[in-house]
This record gives sequence, C-alpha cells and structure tokens, in this order.
Amino acid sequence: MLKAAVLGATGNVGQIFVQLLEGHPWFETSVVAASERSKGRTYGEASRWRQSTPIPEDAAQMNVVDITPKAVKDVDIVFSALPSDVARKAEEDFAKAGYVIVSNASAHRMDPDVPMLNPEINCSHVSLIEEQRRKRKWDGAIVTNPNCSTTVLSLALKPIYDNFGINSVIVSTMQAISGAGYPGVASMDIVDNVIPYIGGEEQKMETEMQKILGSPSEPADFKVSASCHRVPTIDGHMEAVFVDTKKKAEPKAVAEAMENFVGEPQKLNLPSAPPKPVVVMKEKDRPQTRLDRMEGKGMSTVVGRIRKDPVLNGVKFLALGHNTIRGAAGCGVLNAEYLKAKKFI
Amino acid sequence: MLKAAVLGATGNVGQIFVQLLEGHPWFETSVVAASERSKGRTYGEASRWRQSTPIPEDAAQMNVVDITPKAVKDVDIVFSALPSDVARKAEEDFAKAGYVIVSNASAHRMDPDVPMLNPEINCSHVSLIEEQRRKRKWDGAIVTNPNCSTTVLSLALKPIYDNFGINSVIVSTMQAISGAGYPGVASMDIVDNVIPYIGGEEQKMETEMQKILGSPSEPADFKVSASCHRVPTIDGHMEAVFVDTKKKAEPKAVAEAMENFVGEPQKLNLPSAPPKPVVVMKEKDRPQTRLDRMEGKGMSTVVGRIRKDPVLNGVKFLALGHNTIRGAAGCGVLNAEYLKAKKFI
Amino acid sequence: MLKAAVLGATGNVGQIFVQLLEGHPWFETSVVAASERSKGRTYGEASRWRQSTPIPEDAAQMNVVDITPKAVKDVDIVFSALPSDVARKAEEDFAKAGYVIVSNASAHRMDPDVPMLNPEINCSHVSLIEEQRRKRKWDGAIVTNPNCSTTVLSLALKPIYDNFGINSVIVSTMQAISGAGYPGVASMDIVDNVIPYIGGEEQKMETEMQKILGSPSEPADFKVSASCHRVPTIDGHMEAVFVDTKKKAEPKAVAEAMENFVGEPQKLNLPSAPPKPVVVMKEKDRPQTRLDRMEGKGMSTVVGRIRKDPVLNGVKFLALGHNTIRGAAGCGVLNAEYLKAKKFI
Amino acid sequence: MLKAAVLGATGNVGQIFVQLLEGHPWFETSVVAASERSKGRTYGEASRWRQSTPIPEDAAQMNVVDITPKAVKDVDIVFSALPSDVARKAEEDFAKAGYVIVSNASAHRMDPDVPMLNPEINCSHVSLIEEQRRKRKWDGAIVTNPNCSTTVLSLALKPIYDNFGINSVIVSTMQAISGAGYPGVASMDIVDNVIPYIGGEEQKMETEMQKILGSPSEPADFKVSASCHRVPTIDGHMEAVFVDTKKKAEPKAVAEAMENFVGEPQKLNLPSAPPKPVVVMKEKDRPQTRLDRMEGKGMSTVVGRIRKDPVLNGVKFLALGHNTIRGAAGCGVLNAEYLKAKKFI
Repeated sequence: MLKAAVLGATGNVGQIFVQLLEGHPWFETSVVAASERSKGRTYGEASRWRQSTPIPEDAAQMNVVDITPKAVKDVDIVFSALPSDVARKAEEDFAKAGYVIVSNASAHRMDPDVPMLNPEINCSHVSLIEEQRRKRKWDGAIVTNPNCSTTVLSLALKPIYDNFGINSVIVSTMQAISGAGYPGVASMDIVDNVIPYIGGEEQKMETEMQKILGSPSEPADFKVSASCHRVPTIDGHMEAVFVDTKKKAEPKAVAEAMENFVGEPQKLNLPSAPPKPVVVMKEKDRPQTRLDRMEGKGMSTVVGRIRKDPVLNGVKFLALGHNTIRGAAGCGVLNAEYLKAKKFI
Repeated sequence: MLKAAVLGATGNVGQIFVQLLEGHPWFETSVVAASERSKGRTYGEASRWRQSTPIPEDAAQMNVVDITPKAVKDVDIVFSALPSDVARKAEEDFAKAGYVIVSNASAHRMDPDVPMLNPEINCSHVSLIEEQRRKRKWDGAIVTNPNCSTTVLSLALKPIYDNFGINSVIVSTMQAISGAGYPGVASMDIVDNVIPYIGGEEQKMETEMQKILGSPSEPADFKVSASCHRVPTIDGHMEAVFVDTKKKAEPKAVAEAMENFVGEPQKLNLPSAPPKPVVVMKEKDRPQTRLDRMEGKGMSTVVGRIRKDPVLNGVKFLALGHNTIRGAAGCGVLNAEYLKAKKFI
Repeated sequence: MLKAAVLGATGNVGQIFVQLLEGHPWFETSVVAASERSKGRTYGEASRWRQSTPIPEDAAQMNVVDITPKAVKDVDIVFSALPSDVARKAEEDFAKAGYVIVSNASAHRMDPDVPMLNPEINCSHVSLIEEQRRKRKWDGAIVTNPNCSTTVLSLALKPIYDNFGINSVIVSTMQAISGAGYPGVASMDIVDNVIPYIGGEEQKMETEMQKILGSPSEPADFKVSASCHRVPTIDGHMEAVFVDTKKKAEPKAVAEAMENFVGEPQKLNLPSAPPKPVVVMKEKDRPQTRLDRMEGKGMSTVVGRIRKDPVLNGVKFLALGHNTIRGAAGCGVLNAEYLKAKKFI
Repeated sequence: MLKAAVLGATGNVGQIFVQLLEGHPWFETSVVAASERSKGRTYGEASRWRQSTPIPEDAAQMNVVDITPKAVKDVDIVFSALPSDVARKAEEDFAKAGYVIVSNASAHRMDPDVPMLNPEINCSHVSLIEEQRRKRKWDGAIVTNPNCSTTVLSLALKPIYDNFGINSVIVSTMQAISGAGYPGVASMDIVDNVIPYIGGEEQKMETEMQKILGSPSEPADFKVSASCHRVPTIDGHMEAVFVDTKKKAEPKAVAEAMENFVGEPQKLNLPSAPPKPVVVMKEKDRPQTRLDRMEGKGMSTVVGRIRKDPVLNGVKFLALGHNTIRGAAGCGVLNAEYLKAKKFI
C-alpha cells in the first residue's frame, strides 16, 4: 500500500478524497493536513464529517497536521484539495520537497508545464512532468485535474472531437451546491432560486477545455462560450451543450462514438476507472441529476437527448457528471492510479 | 366594468387570472368555468385555491359552470386557461358565439390568422383578427399569448432585433415547476434534481419566437435552438441566451437598447403594463429567480450579465421572467387591455 | 434460492423491493405483478424505474403479470407493495391459494389474527399465523409490517418500554415525500413548504404502536398522540418524540438501553438485519435526514438529542429512519427472512 | 414623521425593518448603522439587498454609520436588529443617551426590568420602563420583542390561557432558514435535509413564553417543552403544539376563543396591527408555510387542525407565523407604534 497525504482534508473535496481512499486497493490515507484552525485536533473532531457514509475509523483518529512538507512526512503521494490561493505556494513547496502532488486546485492548472489530466482524454500529457522538473528544478511533480464542469463535459466532447472535429462549443450549466464547498452557498441564496453566476467558472471552462483536448504543447483550436449557473441540487453538474462540428455529425453517429469511447484507464483496468467513461441514455427525460449522478460510481459522464441542432452545424445534448467525484476527488484518485501504473510514483 | 369569464378557472393559470382580475380597473371576473369535475360546486370549493394571496371573496361564492357558450352568459370577454386539447374546439365555439377569447392555450397560437400577442412587441398583429373573422366566418375572435418561455425571452430579444438584427439564438432554460400546472411535476421528480426535458417546449420556443418578432404575414427570418429544463424553483423562468447578431452589438449598446425599449402598452398606459418591459440589472450575480421574478409586478423581463460572446458574433446574457404572470395570465390580461383600448371589446 | 413475486412492483415501494432483492442471498425476484395499465409490457418499460441504482437487468426483462394467484405462479413467497384498497382482497386471494404474503399495505395490519411485525420487537407475534389459518381456513398467511413512521419510532421505543415502562408518547413527524409514493406529493405543494397533514397517518401511529409493543393477544397499554407533517426531503422520516415513562428515565440510561438493544434478527444473523437496530448519535445536531438515513443500510433507527423533558416525567429525543427501507420494503424483506429462518416459508 | 435609526441594518432582520418602514405612516428610516465592515459605504452597497421587493431608494443612498449614539444622531426612535453579543452593550449605550430602543435582540429580553412585548398579549408590561429607568438611571428605554418561535406561538396560546388555563405546553417546530439570518444556514446543510437543532432556541421558548403571558412582575405558571428543528423553507415557522389545559377545552371552543381574540393594537387601530392576531383555518391541510405565512401581511399567527389530544387533557393544533415579520421586525414596528400611541416616544 502506498501512503497518501490529503491536504485540505477537512473541506468538502478533502473529505471525498478520504472517503474514496477508504478501502482503496493501492492507496491509504496516512496523513491529513489542514489549516491552523484544525491544528491539534483529531480529524474526527476537525472535519465535522458531513458525508452520508460514516467517517473512516482510522482517519477519524489521526491528528491533523500543518500543510507543510515538514509536518507531512513519510508519504508516497500527496492529494491536494486546497483552496486555490493557498495551493499555489504550498503545492510548489511539496514538489520541491520531492513529492508528487495530485491537485484539484486551479492554481497551477494552466501553467504550460503542468499536466491537467482527465485521464481517459489526455494522459499523454504526463510527459510535461519532465519539462516541469527541468524548468522548475525539483524532483517532485504537480499534476492537476480540470475544473469540475470542464471534467464532466470534456469526456463527452472527446469522442466528438476525435470523430467529427469541433469548431465551437456553447454550454449552459446547472451546477450543484457542493461545487462551492462548505459552507459555500448560503441556503437563503439557493432555496427556490437560481444564481446565474459562479465566480471564475466560465473563464475556466472557456480555457481549460482546449488544453485538455489539445496536445501537450498546443491547445485544441476551438472556442468555448460558457454560461454557468447554480441550481438547488446537492451533487451533480448538468450541462446543456451545443456543438458546432467540422464534419457532419448525425445524433446517432455521435451516440455511437460516445458509447464506444474508452481511454487508457479502462485499458489499464485502473481501480477507479468506470466501465464506460461516457454513458448514453435513450430515455427522453434523462439524464436526471439525482437519479444518474452516481453512474459508474460517480465517475462516468452521462449523456442524453443527443439531437440535431437547428442553429449550429452539429448537435445539442445534455451531459451530467458528479462534480465532487469525477469533477474533483475521483478524477484526482484516477490520476494517481495512472501515475502509479506508469511508475511516476 | 367589463364582465369577464375565466375558462379553466380552477387550474393554476386560471387561478392567476382570477387573482389578477381582483381589483382590476376595467375587468371583473363574473363567470368561472371548468371541467365536469367541478360542476355544481362553488369556485371556493372546486378550486382548492393554492395562491399565497387569499381567494377573492366574490369569486369564491360563484358556481362553477360548464365550458360552453351556453353556460357562460352575459360576459364581455373570455379568458382561456384551458389545457390545449380542450381549448381547440372550446375556443372556436366561443368565437362562433361572438366572444373575444384571450387565450393562454397553445392550440391556436400558430394558426396563421390568429394573433399571438406579446403586446410590447407585436400588437400590430391584431390586424389578423379581420382575416380570421372573414375566413372563419365568425364575429368573435381568438387572440393568444405565446408560450411562457417565449414570452419572457422575446421581450429581451425585441430591442436586439430592432437595433442589431438577429441571425440566430441559442437558449438554455431553467424553468420553474409552476409552468407545468397543478399537480404537474411530482415532487419525487424535482427535489434535488434537474429534469432535462419539457414536452413540446423546445419546439414552441423554436417556432413562436419568429411569429412574434415578424410581421403579421411573415415570420422573422432567424433560427432558434432551445434546450429546456426544469429546476426546483416555484415561479420564474431563467434563460441563458446566446445571440448571433447581424450588426456588431457591444454589451453596453445592447443594455441601452433594452433599457430604452417601451411598447404600445407603456404609451397607452395600460393598467398592467410594467413601467419597463425589460429591466437591466448591473450586479454580477443578478437576476436571481426568487429575488427578481416579481419585477414590474411580475410583468417585466429582467436581464443581467450582458457580455460579449466568444463564439458567436454577438452577446450572451441571462433573462428572467415570471412564467405564470408575464408568461401566462398577466400577458393575457395585458392583451385584453390592449384590445379594449383599441375597441375590439 | 427462493422465488419471490412482488405485487405492485411498478410503484415506489415495489421498486425498492426489487432493488433490495437484487443480490439477496435467499430470495430472488421471479415475478413482477402490477395493475392493468402495465399489462403486456416488460418491467423495464412499465416501471419507469426511478431509483438511483440501475434497474436489475433480469427484472427489467420480465413481463408484468396480473395481480392474481393465477397469473403469479411458482413462487415461494409473495411481497405486497399494493395500495391498501387493492391489497385487502388481493392478499386474501393469495393466502387462500396457499401463499405466504409479506405485505407493506395497511389493509390487514390491525386484523387481530394478522401479525404486524417489526421483527426486532415482536417476532413472537408470528404465532398469530396459526390462529389466522384456523379462523380463515387457508393454508397461506398474511404478515404485515407497520406504517413507516410507526416502524421507525417503535424501534426507539422498545428499549424504553422494556426498561422504564411507558405511560404515553407524543410525537411530531417531519416526513419525506417518498412516503406518499409516486407521483404522490405535487412539487407545487412541497417546495418551500410544510404540509401539516398526512391522511390516516396520525391514526395509524396512535394505534399500531400498541399492537407491536404488546403481546400477540393484547396491545400495550399506553397512549400515543401524533402530529404528522410532510417536509421537503426525499427519504427519511424525522420524528420529535416526547415520552412519559413509568420509571425514572435518565437520558444517559435511555441511551444505554437503546445502544444495547438487539432483537431476534441480530441473534439469527438475518441478512438484512442491521448490526444495531437503534444507533445513538452524540453530536448535538444529529441525526440529520440526508446524512444519517442510510445508517445500517437504511435499516437502523438513528436517535439523537436524548434529553430530560421539562413537562413530562421522561425524555425527549429525535428519531430518524429510512421510510422506504426500514419503514417499508426493507422491513418486509427482514420479515421474510425471519419467516424463512423459522420455516414458515 | 418620526425619524428612526436601524442598528444592524445590513443583516436580514435589519433589511426587513427598512422594508417595513418604507411608506410607514409614522416612522421613516433616517439613519442606518452597521458594523465596521460596512463603514464608509452607502446602504445600497453595503447591504447587498436580498429582499424580493426593491431596496427603498432613499435608504439606498444613505451612508452607513457606526453603531454608537455619537454616530446615530437626531432620531426619535432606534430599532435594533443587532446580533445578541453586540446588542447587550450597544443598546445600553443608546438608552443612556436617552433613546428608546425597540430591539429584536435576545440580550435584554429576560432582564426583569425590560419589557418583552408581543403587544396583543402583554402591552401592559410597558410599565416596566419606569422601573428600568429608575434602576438603571437612564432616560431612554429598552423594549424587546420575543424570539420568533415564541412570538408566533404566544399569540395562539393567549386565548387558551385566558379562557381555559394552561398546565403545560409541548411544541415541536419546523423553522425556516431565514431565522438564522444571512448567510446563516449553509445550503449543504439544509437541501433535502432536516437539522434537528437550533442553538439556544428551545431554552428561549421554554422561558420567554411565561414572561409574556405573565404579569409584569411574575411569569405565568406553566411549563413548556420545546424541540426545535430547521426545515428547507425560506420564511415561516410552523409549530406542532400540544397543550394541557386547566379547564376542559373542546376544539370548537378553542377555535372560537382564538377567532374572537383581539388586543390593544387592534383597539388602537395601530398601522401594523393585523385585523386578526390569530386566524383559524378550517381546511384539513392548512396552514401551509408557503401559502399562509403572509396572512395579515405577515403579522398574524395562522392556526389549523385544532383537535382533541389523546394524551393530554387538552388540544393539539398547528400554528404558523412569519418569522422575520411577526417574529422579528414586524413585531418591533408594532411595539414602536404602541409606544408612540402611548406617548413613550
């Protein structure tokens, strides 16, 4: 078993990391680190565990340590669920100390020498690690996963991109409250309400997508327009997508391309890889957020209602994914599994 | 005071008609008609009133009558909140009997000789009444209002259409549960959920828009692509809109065009006309469904976040409107006010 | 493997039966029966499966049959999730045809010769089957489980009843929408709302409790006052309970009695028996509906905030349980397991 | 017009004070005070107005000032919506400076020389002001209103107390999220959830009730047991109440006593006095939170389902009231109206 540290372990994504690592065949949570506030308390006390499965007993007893390489010792891999402002420096410190950091923070995602992996799509980008080590003169590595909305959507776009080419993408999201962390969205702001704004989200979707779908050195050449909205759901980001394709893309052909899509994680049989990265539903009123977000243990993107678009040369459809699993901690764990399979850890 | 009948008075939109007519300066509810089920009961008993203002006392005491010209007597105008399948024949019967019907049903909306009015936009379409009477050989008239999502959005598009021209519109909706009537959406289907499908809604948005924004004889020449979704809000349809314009449209210029927009109802000072058909909010996180749906007593479309679109040649923005007021009964009442002002009643 | 039929299989509780039997070590769903509407369709088509786990593949392919012993053939046990009005006669027909019926319907619960089992509490009541067979002259048997709110609460009351005696119970419920089945509660009636009335529920709580906690021939001698309310939660009935005890009952002693409580299902190690029928939480703000309803795979009652009552001679506390698992299908499956263990099947 | 200051004006209850004073016939908001954070900004900027009616234009332009008598000048009355920890000293400072403070904070409610007024019930308690001034050696005065849940319930209990006597009260609440202020309850904590704990609330209900229903010098002699819970509603506290009465109390007689109940505010025709302090609904499923919370412009307690209690010698019923209007700012304004009518201002 490889020993893992979780940075930012008391937050919502941090808790999902700890939850996903429980019973994991390769990794075990051996250190939990969090901010000053939690210092000197056990993880059980500090986390105010808010998941619907019980807190793992081992983790509950651990003492929370500082977010520094000095305090986090003797681990084989570091998962980061840090807020972005803290992440920038902290993750660099860990990389300098020789650790491989698998991070959900946005701080380093767009750095040209940092792989932003959604492993079914672009695991070849791990090649950037070499460049990163050379340029930054460290032995560790920072590997990131994309923003939650981008992760979910990029899985659905990959088979379109490969089979039909993409000129542009317009996307309107209906995002769950857990995406804002805890305490995050005030209940007065979301019960019987839609908030038509999520800070930084549109800009992330409009730039990360091309990095993921491109080559390690060159982003993909298409434009994305995003409008991001918060709706009263707990987990699961639903996205209405309109794609202008280079080649003619009949809905049926698009559905087939999605259903046939598999990536390296499936070929390598990685523990967290869903059987199908993209699941296509036929029912006219699916996917639905509450019913379908756990598809593939929360690791699949579920697509439905693929239909010809009357405005663009292409298709429109719905894509749904679990924002804190596939869109955050789950993607991080899958990235770590890939890194291990490829001997980076 | 003109006497009004409300057909389908026990349903949700029917109740809103009765609610809006309470204290109206020109019209009063004098007959309530509903299906067999309600026969022989007072409106108070039959309606199981579910609004957050009390049932108007006069209406509560009325006996519910059949939906036939024979049972509905001595009224000056007929408001129809009938389900579409019932509306087709029933509304024709009333028109034959000489009544002017102001209808929220979709049955006759797309008939070429039936005006579909959103009166700030296209009140000139009342000229179709003449053709309708000639062709159908009746003395009454059927006048409709558009589908709720279309009504809300068309107000925001009109100033764009007039000032910049429109090539195409892509719209993704987040619609309230009241749009499905009562009992409508099952709670098991919507709590902590998004339903990515509303029967017939996309097709309505993709065809009604051009009829409203066109001339009486010719629909406007642009395409609409809609993706319609139900979210857990009570009232208020929020729409994410992406518009490709003919002329260059800077966000600031679009905002000004919207703010300066007024229509005939404002010029005629009609009782239900909101001061501004389109209200533009500056805050980065507005409009919000719960906070802003009652703008202009529920008769305004509230627009926010007008920004350049990175994909289309144009703008993207949010538009919000109250689906059962502006999007249904309120638009009907405003239509009736216009018809009276123009001596059609 | 014993073959099971599920009557009323397309409804919400029916679906939970099918869900719980998937992978069950002793029983397998081999027949699904439902009303006329579903006839001639596969279960996959007819059920419009609405659970968050996928429909079991075998069940999806089955043809739905009529709710008659003639149509339901070759099964070892019959689970009934029928609506009460249909259940009365249908269940008698099956009993006459020699089947053992484990029913969630209320129709026969209060019949003196029908066991209403919550098996940790009163599995000795199976002795009523003998009387039932003699009186009703049939070879089969009808065994019921209590109403959902009663099931949840009775587990928490049993250790109090045994250790301190009970003079009276006052209970105020906050019940989930799934308790009303599907489509059940209209969303317009429950979003941002509390409905302070659930038809028949209070009367059930005020009579079923004494039958369960009593002997087979004599109900327990205490009074219950219930006030039942629907709140906007998906699953999980939360109950605020005030108990007047015969002996002095300190909160700490009550907690201990609850934690030490086990019943026959635990002793027999039945597959669906939760490790602890009653789980006591120490945190001041627990149990919470969303976080704790799946405790013991949805089969435990979770109790919290046990405190001295300032009015009654006794304690007040919160009790939470999963209404469609412990409170319905899960209790039925546990009853069936007990019946099999005791050779009734 | 009397000039009013609102302390804590940017919070949720502060905003309701400003909203209720807009267009008030006697008072006008002339100073808005808030904590350091808001200093040097206009109220429009600082408040992030979150009500569903627009921010009053005059107030929006005001500069926010410090919460000190020095900064708040030239006002005739001071409304306090301060958090309790700040309120204790600040309100005393204002009283020393000669102001009459009408406070929603809990800090001084239980002080024996401070009236806690729910004016239909106990406006005679203003006599305590004299004692307060004498003991505390100040010219101003502190007058409080009760906790929101207590305010709502006490209106319903008063006619029972007067007509039948009360031995004890058991109450289980279903409280809205606005009761926790803003940001208050995290959305992750309340969507699809019930939180069975509200800090301090039960203790307030169990002690404030007797002070209100008693004489100025002596609390009423009965016991209250409360269990307080948060449910996913925006506004409106629903309470399930079980009352043990001294005299026999038939539900019909209780309903009549409630319907006939009026207090001084009604007799004096105060501007904010609802026509009926207690409205009794006959429908079996009312009151409902969303539909009935605005009864009497949010100033009435709405009672329903009065029925014989099978455990206690008395009745059980539901009581609903608007927590931020009747239960907070609205009660404060009504108190101020009473003080003015009685020349205390």
